[in-house]
Amino acid sequence: MTVEKDAMRLALISFHGCPVARLGEKDTGGMNVYVLNLASELGNLGHHVDVFTRYHDVKDPQIVELGLNVRVIHLNGGPLLERKEDLAFHTASFTANMHEFISQESIEYDLVHSHYWLSGKIAAEISRIWNIPHVSTFHTLAKTKLRAHSGEKETSYRVNIESEIMGSSNTILVLTEKEREDIRELYGVSPERITVIPAGVDAERFNAEDKITSRKRVCIADKETILFVGRIEPIKGLNILLDALKTLSNSRDLQLIVVGGNLSGDKELTALRERAKNLGISKMIDF
Amino acid sequence: MTVEKDAMRLALISFHGCPVARLGEKDTGGMNVYVLNLASELGNLGHHVDVFTRYHDVKDPQIVELGLNVRVIHLNGGPLLERKEDLAFHTASFTANMHEFISQESIEYDLVHSHYWLSGKIAAEISRIWNIPHVSTFHTLAKTKLRAHSGEKETSYRVNIESEIMGSSNTILVLTEKEREDIRELYGVSPERITVIPAGVDAERFNAEDKITSRKRVCIADKETILFVGRIEPIKGLNILLDALKTLSNSRDLQLIVVGGNLSGDKELTALRERAKNLGISKMIDF
Repeated sequence: MTVEKDAMRLALISFHGCPVARLGEKDTGGMNVYVLNLASELGNLGHHVDVFTRYHDVKDPQIVELGLNVRVIHLNGGPLLERKEDLAFHTASFTANMHEFISQESIEYDLVHSHYWLSGKIAAEISRIWNIPHVSTFHTLAKTKLRAHSGEKETSYRVNIESEIMGSSNTILVLTEKEREDIRELYGVSPERITVIPAGVDAERFNAEDKITSRKRVCIADKETILFVGRIEPIKGLNILLDALKTLSNSRDLQLIVVGGNLSGDKELTALRERAKNLGISKMIDF
Repeated sequence: MTVEKDAMRLALISFHGCPVARLGEKDTGGMNVYVLNLASELGNLGHHVDVFTRYHDVKDPQIVELGLNVRVIHLNGGPLLERKEDLAFHTASFTANMHEFISQESIEYDLVHSHYWLSGKIAAEISRIWNIPHVSTFHTLAKTKLRAHSGEKETSYRVNIESEIMGSSNTILVLTEKEREDIRELYGVSPERITVIPAGVDAERFNAEDKITSRKRVCIADKETILFVGRIEPIKGLNILLDALKTLSNSRDLQLIVVGGNLSGDKELTALRERAKNLGISKMIDF
């Protein structure tokens, strides 16, 4: 499966989501998993991949070798513990540092692939400076969040920058047809500028097994089951799921399994447990 | 001289050079004077001018009314006392804050005019976000400095950003034909993309007077005089002027008047005085 002779040098930018951060920690979720696995698989195919990300810990070495052909490169970009809402203030320093790193190593990348709008802003500039194609993946979009009334405040600045990135990227890479449709509808981008590549599955880790055996293994009852996997945050809409469960519970014998991060004492989790209690469905849920 | 009915709303960006900073202070020179007078004169003509600049003192109010139709607006953009070399790291925060300010005041600018490359970087983004024309004035350029071997280190990052600004500006405004020629030669920009508008002179302050009377008034000898006005910095090339003076002094009776900022105890000034002494021309110079 090697493609050595067509090997490319790829720069992935994941400004705020470090692929070597611990999964389930605050602001560490699906995007980090995606970037980590994308980089690893591209590396396995023989491509040379550098993942550029912010330092998130004083103990971070600048360069982390991450398996075959893959490096994670930490660069300064604002204070280590900066609030996520203020990260947009530090894209300029990260961009300048990334420019400096590329200059010093004399690397010629064939492509830069950005993850999230903040990385897209950085990649757009890097793409212009070095004249290399830019593929952008947003993972979430301000206008989608605003439409969902998720409660998170999204600025018009973010919306504008997202539009700019969409306009200047060589292609916008999304994971589902739904995302392509959202971008077309909310940002007015022509569908042919958007490429859909579904996320892969690690078939060694996730493989088909008899349902009853599987349920026994993880100790859950053998009945109709809803599984939620994700961080416990308002954006994920667990409150809506609880309301739906209440409605369904009148006619069906259900259980809901919630698999999230380590959030003991988390306000959102406490609020959701309270809501479940008030709806009288606590017994159906395994948080 | 009013043009009220054609009045425009103009945003001037002078990120690091505040027009209300005291002249002659470190990094406060001709550019500040230029921006201040440009803003004032445009205001006198009936245009509405906002000059956006970095906070440079905790005592700065956010908005300073600066005569007719002119406001200076201070915005956060990195630490107050940041080193000039690190200001490039803070253009993103300034840009985001400027976007926020414009949004909140619901101002529709007709034009954004940037001063220096850092401001040009900010203006390029503001111009794209709000879809308004961008006029850029550089005042100094990295490649001109590098060619002059002035000793100041200029990064390839600055060179790249300058090229980008030149490419995206609606016009590049320069003060002299020499600057137009430099930009054409060093950055490969077509001359028709560059507009030359010489700097004005305050005719009330500077007016023609009999030479002998003038010299008496400022107490200088009535002989061939070379006048240097500017900050005492390596980039200004005073060392070259001293060498030239030495050469000329063999055949002519000259004097050199140096008018600079308040730099008592300044290293550069001390070095220049030492050089003059070694050249045996100290008596010809009034520092």
